[in-house]
Amino acid sequence: MEKIVPKPSIYYPDFIASNQENRANNLIPGKSKKAHLEHIRKDIREFKDKHGLEAVIVLWTANTERYTEVQSGLNLTAEEVLASIDSNKEEISPSNIFAVASILEGAHYINGSPQNTLVPGIVVLAEKKGVFIGGDDFKSGQTKIKSALAEFLVNSGLKPESIVSYNHLGNNDGKNLSEARQFRSKEISKSSVVDDMVASNQILYPDGKKPDHVVVIKYVPFVGDSKRAMDEYVCSIFMGGLQTIAMHNTCEDSLLATPLILDLTIITELCSRIKYTSPSNDGKFESFNSVLSLLSLLLKAPVVPQGTPVTNAFNRQLSSITKLLTVCAGISSDNDLQLEFFTKL
Amino acid sequence: MEKIVPKPSIYYPDFIASNQENRANNLIPGKSKKAHLEHIRKDIREFKDKHGLEAVIVLWTANTERYTEVQSGLNLTAEEVLASIDSNKEEISPSNIFAVASILEGAHYINGSPQNTLVPGIVVLAEKKGVFIGGDDFKSGQTKIKSALAEFLVNSGLKPESIVSYNHLGNNDGKNLSEARQFRSKEISKSSVVDDMVASNQILYPDGKKPDHVVVIKYVPFVGDSKRAMDEYVCSIFMGGLQTIAMHNTCEDSLLATPLILDLTIITELCSRIKYTSPSNDGKFESFNSVLSLLSLLLKAPVVPQGTPVTNAFNRQLSSITKLLTVCAGISSDNDLQLEFFTKL
Amino acid sequence: MEKIVPKPSIYYPDFIASNQENRANNLIPGKSKKAHLEHIRKDIREFKDKHGLEAVIVLWTANTERYTEVQSGLNLTAEEVLASIDSNKEEISPSNIFAVASILEGAHYINGSPQNTLVPGIVVLAEKKGVFIGGDDFKSGQTKIKSALAEFLVNSGLKPESIVSYNHLGNNDGKNLSEARQFRSKEISKSSVVDDMVASNQILYPDGKKPDHVVVIKYVPFVGDSKRAMDEYVCSIFMGGLQTIAMHNTCEDSLLATPLILDLTIITELCSRIKYTSPSNDGKFESFNSVLSLLSLLLKAPVVPQGTPVTNAFNRQLSSITKLLTVCAGISSDNDLQLEFFTKL
Amino acid sequence: MEKIVPKPSIYYPDFIASNQENRANNLIPGKSKKAHLEHIRKDIREFKDKHGLEAVIVLWTANTERYTEVQSGLNLTAEEVLASIDSNKEEISPSNIFAVASILEGAHYINGSPQNTLVPGIVVLAEKKGVFIGGDDFKSGQTKIKSALAEFLVNSGLKPESIVSYNHLGNNDGKNLSEARQFRSKEISKSSVVDDMVASNQILYPDGKKPDHVVVIKYVPFVGDSKRAMDEYVCSIFMGGLQTIAMHNTCEDSLLATPLILDLTIITELCSRIKYTSPSNDGKFESFNSVLSLLSLLLKAPVVPQGTPVTNAFNRQLSSITKLLTVCAGISSDNDLQLEFFTKL
Repeated sequence: MEKIVPKPSIYYPDFIASNQENRANNLIPGKSKKAHLEHIRKDIREFKDKHGLEAVIVLWTANTERYTEVQSGLNLTAEEVLASIDSNKEEISPSNIFAVASILEGAHYINGSPQNTLVPGIVVLAEKKGVFIGGDDFKSGQTKIKSALAEFLVNSGLKPESIVSYNHLGNNDGKNLSEARQFRSKEISKSSVVDDMVASNQILYPDGKKPDHVVVIKYVPFVGDSKRAMDEYVCSIFMGGLQTIAMHNTCEDSLLATPLILDLTIITELCSRIKYTSPSNDGKFESFNSVLSLLSLLLKAPVVPQGTPVTNAFNRQLSSITKLLTVCAGISSDNDLQLEFFTKL
Repeated sequence: MEKIVPKPSIYYPDFIASNQENRANNLIPGKSKKAHLEHIRKDIREFKDKHGLEAVIVLWTANTERYTEVQSGLNLTAEEVLASIDSNKEEISPSNIFAVASILEGAHYINGSPQNTLVPGIVVLAEKKGVFIGGDDFKSGQTKIKSALAEFLVNSGLKPESIVSYNHLGNNDGKNLSEARQFRSKEISKSSVVDDMVASNQILYPDGKKPDHVVVIKYVPFVGDSKRAMDEYVCSIFMGGLQTIAMHNTCEDSLLATPLILDLTIITELCSRIKYTSPSNDGKFESFNSVLSLLSLLLKAPVVPQGTPVTNAFNRQLSSITKLLTVCAGISSDNDLQLEFFTKL
Repeated sequence: MEKIVPKPSIYYPDFIASNQENRANNLIPGKSKKAHLEHIRKDIREFKDKHGLEAVIVLWTANTERYTEVQSGLNLTAEEVLASIDSNKEEISPSNIFAVASILEGAHYINGSPQNTLVPGIVVLAEKKGVFIGGDDFKSGQTKIKSALAEFLVNSGLKPESIVSYNHLGNNDGKNLSEARQFRSKEISKSSVVDDMVASNQILYPDGKKPDHVVVIKYVPFVGDSKRAMDEYVCSIFMGGLQTIAMHNTCEDSLLATPLILDLTIITELCSRIKYTSPSNDGKFESFNSVLSLLSLLLKAPVVPQGTPVTNAFNRQLSSITKLLTVCAGISSDNDLQLEFFTKL
Repeated sequence: MEKIVPKPSIYYPDFIASNQENRANNLIPGKSKKAHLEHIRKDIREFKDKHGLEAVIVLWTANTERYTEVQSGLNLTAEEVLASIDSNKEEISPSNIFAVASILEGAHYINGSPQNTLVPGIVVLAEKKGVFIGGDDFKSGQTKIKSALAEFLVNSGLKPESIVSYNHLGNNDGKNLSEARQFRSKEISKSSVVDDMVASNQILYPDGKKPDHVVVIKYVPFVGDSKRAMDEYVCSIFMGGLQTIAMHNTCEDSLLATPLILDLTIITELCSRIKYTSPSNDGKFESFNSVLSLLSLLLKAPVVPQGTPVTNAFNRQLSSITKLLTVCAGISSDNDLQLEFFTKL
């Protein structure tokens, strides 16, 4: 990617013209999903040509959509997805079309919102085309801290028993989430963030019973883009005692999300240049898996290759990315033992 | 250590008899520091004999003392320390005597309070005797979370600009800290916890200027042992924005500290059984450095071997100890890359 | 009321036998609402006789019911209510039956839960029988502070723009409220608490536009009876500035509610002994209105006589009750001017 | 006061020229306190003449000074104060000189800072000259809420046992308060705010023992004028339970204080136009007491006429001022009984 030149007339919502009553005002004309697909593919091609780009990465940062049904005949295979677009099936969402358009154009696609754009058929399509896909949902504020704090608590032997996460905001995203079906997408993306930490510690959670975990999002117009997160963590400690942490966190929603947009695209582009092989691979070099789980650090509900575990713990995610960069840079990896500081040899 | 049998008549304050007016009520008789030293040495020996122990580990969990002067002629060398005890010098603190008694008896010594017990002369003495020393100050509540949260923020590119940590408690420890000279010890042990994280990130802190950092401890009898920590973190984020985190943390003081006492002694004992060598060492096996910096995870102001860096970042400390245990157990070390999850080979 | 003797076998849920699976275990037998009414009336009579009481006051402290429809032919008049009971109409709630039974037995009836037990027909019935009724919903924790804090802010000229009130609890009440229809009752009772303060200040709220106001209640089993309220108030201040107050409030649910039960019954009984007249009333003495709005101080959503304003502001409510007691005690009323302290005469 | 025209060249600090190193840069020349007095008197006269004013009110909003000694021979009588200025006594503070200059010019003087400007000799001088004085210390943020919240808690029968008030700010005022002697002034002005509420309730506080009460102020440059207050209230409730309220309050320091400046001057001027008499006063009309305790609502540590009680409770203070205005406007006073709403006549 030589130059990154945004093309606002196509890809950005026109915020100046928008208003509370009529927020969606930059629509692709027509009702045929197939036509929409071709429209977007053409936009990507023209954008790439016009700016002389080597590669394009498409990142969805539009508002949350409702969840899409996942079912046989609709979107389980690449063929089903393409056929469902052709037959204009209701259940094919706008983001499905963006994702398919990107993949068909060889553009990596990242989903920064909570909905399940990356249905099985789209994953298969990306794998076939050798395109990266990543998602879901920017991990920017409350969930990000939770993924670090819960990891800290569990690692300290302080057993989280209840985690209650309230948050409210007043921007377009908040208004959109006040619709129950969209909220459902968000709730799902936020709810599993402590699951891997609980599962990883069978001493604290011998019976696998998860902590009580509640997530609430409310639309409060007055606070605007200044998202407020209020969390309460109650932990069981030694001898039946309790540690209670209450937190008020003012997260400027857009200012926290924007750097993630940059990081996600930069890391994705970087990964597209990494190839590796092994002695048993006959000298053939491979790319990473199409489902780019390395991006987990920046995402609330990481999509991972089938059969691999989801990591939400912040520091485990960070290690993964840091260590990869270290290896690529040819720096001898820090094994974290710090033995040199407490041995005498 | 075959059996751990506490010997309360000697080592524990007699809480039943104690009261607000007269808190120190279990004094070693006499005014000669030399006599105190011998008294404690004898206690350690008798305790060891009586219970048929292989080793004794002494852990100071008494209240905070004021800082001790560190100066030539007083406590810079092992000889100076011993001579200062013989000559009953005022500046030799009770904890100095406990540490020296322990070391002379071959008992590892851990300082769970903030004061600077481990003066240079005592460090040298421990090295001569091949005894482990560790300290200072249990990292249990507010500072522990800070060492994880500040690490998280810096690693996320959210630049802490001010960290304000208030806390109050109503137990004996709180009463003792309401005395200015003891508070000074505590303030020092709590104040450097973010320094290594700031120093490690020259992008966020190009000029090395540290965040504003304030630590306050107050004695509020009513809350008793239920220590309350109130923290505010203000971070600069993207485009001049601010993220503000306010936290109220109810830390049951003793219930958080007690497991650390167990962990510190158990890890110290374990380390006393670890020996290592290298090809260049003529088959000779070595112990770890006498200053056992591996204990840093559990301590607010880690004492480290001269010339080595202090690590306060919680996850770096945790890695160090986790990786050592992995190595000792002969488990293949997780390099944290998690490559297996995003590669195809 | 000579003696207050609870009669647990009838009026109290049997907590010992109750459990999570089967919480309602002390049911009045039969399906006929008419039979239930007679059962309860008989219980009241027998209770009164057995203990030789002058008066009985019935206070509903059972869990929240869903809202009842209010409609012609069902419960708009006393006759409709009685006929609806006779014909076993579904929409007649258990608390309706308790209220009617109490009123018919001349027992004052207070509703400590949020649902709309006191439908118009029951109010009329109480007026006919000269019985006091009061409600709705104990004002114990979050709403109580809000009714004082919002009053304070408005009186200080600090304009509340958004008030967000989250709370969670883990007792039976919390479990019950996790059912949408009951939550709706609670939400209504909590939502109007700032309305009178907004309406009273046309300088701060010239257009009558209310602040954004959100109320959330969640069921979090682990915290049990220890209800947690997390509130955020954002106020517009001078020159477009903002004052933001975030609060974490640990309200032991039952321990805050129980004293209200005592106060509500004691004040109601006291009011039953107050009569008054005026020169124009031909020497006839009157009781207070059947709808006892004096109880507002202790109730979240005060029921008041038709046509009179609802007061939620804590200090106005408190003045009302304090001044009445002062008058009754024959104490010269404090006019609050405190003139004696700043004049010279 | 016909027109309010500020005269910045004299009375305002020159913020543009100021800087961290040299904050006091608008000094009255000379070292003689007598000369300073005359300088300020002349400024007041010239300001009044130039703008054709009927009256001038002087309000001190400069930074906090250290406490002044109060002792015989120095400042106990009007004569002592004037003589101490003449003899250039060290203990006569800048604000003493401003107050005396104002009083001698017939200008009412209000102290918006915590120090004890209004020593006995100055009070006597004001009484002699028939000039109003008021103080001390704007009640704007944390203390203001405390004076409402503590009143609420005590009035609700929830017994405050500990009140811990931390706050930090980064403006000039914060820097100044980081000096111990000035902090002492502030600490005193903030510390007695709950005393009258405790004293008023002998049921909650039968032995007169006050709650634990801690006030901390810290200088944290980064937060600038955005003062942060963090408070914790712990109350004993029914049956030995506890209610704990933790609060984070972002108080824009200047934006909260400025309206108080306006209110204090406007109310003072209004009071200067109120006269009253009584049948026993031979038709003579009187002004209010020189020590204008009516201003208490707006001040942290109200100065009151000798022998009269200090009221800190917010709603009592508010009633006092509201009721006076009602009386002056000839509106029939609301006795707060609201009898009209619950009686039938």
